[in-house]
Amino acid sequence: MRYPQRAPQAGLPEYVTVYEVGPRDGLQNESALVPTAAKVEFVRRLIAAGLTTIEATSFVHPGWVPQLADAGELLEALDLTGPVALPVLVPNERGLDRALEAGVGTIAIFGSATDTFARKNLNRSFDEQFAMFEPTVKRARAHGLEVRAYVSMCFGDPWEGDVPVAQVVQAGRRLLDLGASQLSIGDSIGVGTPGHVKELLAAFVDAGTALDALAVHFHDTYGQALANAYAALEAGVRTFDASAGGLGGCPYAPGATGNLATEDLVWMLHGLGIDTGVDLDSLIETSVWMAQVLGRPAPSGVVRALAPR
Amino acid sequence: MRYPQRAPQAGLPEYVTVYEVGPRDGLQNESALVPTAAKVEFVRRLIAAGLTTIEATSFVHPGWVPQLADAGELLEALDLTGPVALPVLVPNERGLDRALEAGVGTIAIFGSATDTFARKNLNRSFDEQFAMFEPTVKRARAHGLEVRAYVSMCFGDPWEGDVPVAQVVQAGRRLLDLGASQLSIGDSIGVGTPGHVKELLAAFVDAGTALDALAVHFHDTYGQALANAYAALEAGVRTFDASAGGLGGCPYAPGATGNLATEDLVWMLHGLGIDTGVDLDSLIETSVWMAQVLGRPAPSGVVRALAPR
Repeated sequence: MRYPQRAPQAGLPEYVTVYEVGPRDGLQNESALVPTAAKVEFVRRLIAAGLTTIEATSFVHPGWVPQLADAGELLEALDLTGPVALPVLVPNERGLDRALEAGVGTIAIFGSATDTFARKNLNRSFDEQFAMFEPTVKRARAHGLEVRAYVSMCFGDPWEGDVPVAQVVQAGRRLLDLGASQLSIGDSIGVGTPGHVKELLAAFVDAGTALDALAVHFHDTYGQALANAYAALEAGVRTFDASAGGLGGCPYAPGATGNLATEDLVWMLHGLGIDTGVDLDSLIETSVWMAQVLGRPAPSGVVRALAPR
Repeated sequence: MRYPQRAPQAGLPEYVTVYEVGPRDGLQNESALVPTAAKVEFVRRLIAAGLTTIEATSFVHPGWVPQLADAGELLEALDLTGPVALPVLVPNERGLDRALEAGVGTIAIFGSATDTFARKNLNRSFDEQFAMFEPTVKRARAHGLEVRAYVSMCFGDPWEGDVPVAQVVQAGRRLLDLGASQLSIGDSIGVGTPGHVKELLAAFVDAGTALDALAVHFHDTYGQALANAYAALEAGVRTFDASAGGLGGCPYAPGATGNLATEDLVWMLHGLGIDTGVDLDSLIETSVWMAQVLGRPAPSGVVRALAPR
């Protein structure tokens, strides 16, 4: 199979970083427990496919996400000193202890752009979440770790509805001020559209945020994820979260909230003449293999079209 | 359900025409025969949802597309003199005779940007297709009918691979020169990406084509359709083909070639502050209803997320 690849477009970058979230954000939504050995194999295949940043797991309490209860065991089986960055989500200082013990180089924290979701997910108010994150981030930085901060519900909230752009920017700025080096601007419920994306990114830039410090994280719930990614690319973003095979919520269930599929993103980026370092054939094989492990079809467009059944 | 709607974006239009192709391009790919009464109901529901242009059926020979063998009967049941345009695909002069008899106001013809597909689909070479279309278009125009011309395989061809931009422009210009008033630039196999879309549209404009004469027709085979639609919108296109529910090829089969789902397109357009005249709730209800008639889930993101199961 030849994939379409065009000459680079004026105004777009030569290279874009794909931040792979399948092993953490994708698998955490799967109800069937995946064996640790299969997770190790998943990360190794993603590395072999050329992904340079792969969020491997989370040190969230196993009671909340049983799927990731094997985080320590998984990290022991992976090479955390190699050239591929393997960030780990850390909810609190206890999680940071475990990350330090495991030798993790980058942690991710998970903030909220809205008060309601902060209370539901973190048991803190909007304002209180920053005080909660502060000791974790400060100590991680003191140990030389990089910190990525997710900002969730940036384009809409299931309880609050519209989320003011200024409030999202405030949340992001406060997380950067704590010591995070990258924000992942998330459309957790997939309602955003390209103009909203550009408006929010422009507001971050107006507030003095460097585009290099911004990543975007789109969900394809309403089919908007790739159009939003293109809008973010045009707006100057150079890091894009995506999940191999579109893992993250079953596409065949009501309220499905799948992540943007890495293959679909890479297809677009390569078509735009942008290098990602990813070998699309290997990536598709990996997503097909993982769908077999999970026993359900991958929701990604590329896999649906090309994978043998 | 409240849908996100933002203020209009600078440089984008206030209104966009959604050209609904579900009853023709969508249904023609369904193997199970849909009763004529259900097709009539489908078109009526689409009209009630606010669609202003709905390609109703085709006068192609029933041997080729048995699903549309009831074209005459369907058109008799519809109001062809109302405010909603109901174009009909016409393959040749015999089809035009039937369209004239039925009182159709706009016909569509189906050309090819490549020689191989012209031979396979039309039994003509690339050059011969224009001579074949000429009497049909001339006579349609003489009777006061509008003519829309599809240009298929504009972004890639399964047999030829890459398709030169200049060749697509040549095909389109020759169809306009015959008397077509609108081109529908089609990515029949869904391989295109946003930069390619902008490059092709710019080439049409450079060749003197008015943007008003261009529509785009994307398939979501590799998940690229909505990103491509956004790119075309930015490039100045104001007419977008889409199929309610994403009808047009089964999404669960290898090589699936579903059309861009009308709901997903309208979600994006409304989110961009662009009016379409479409009521999204009614449209979703229509797509859900049609999926029930067909006995399979609708592949559209919006329907998958919102429809009761």
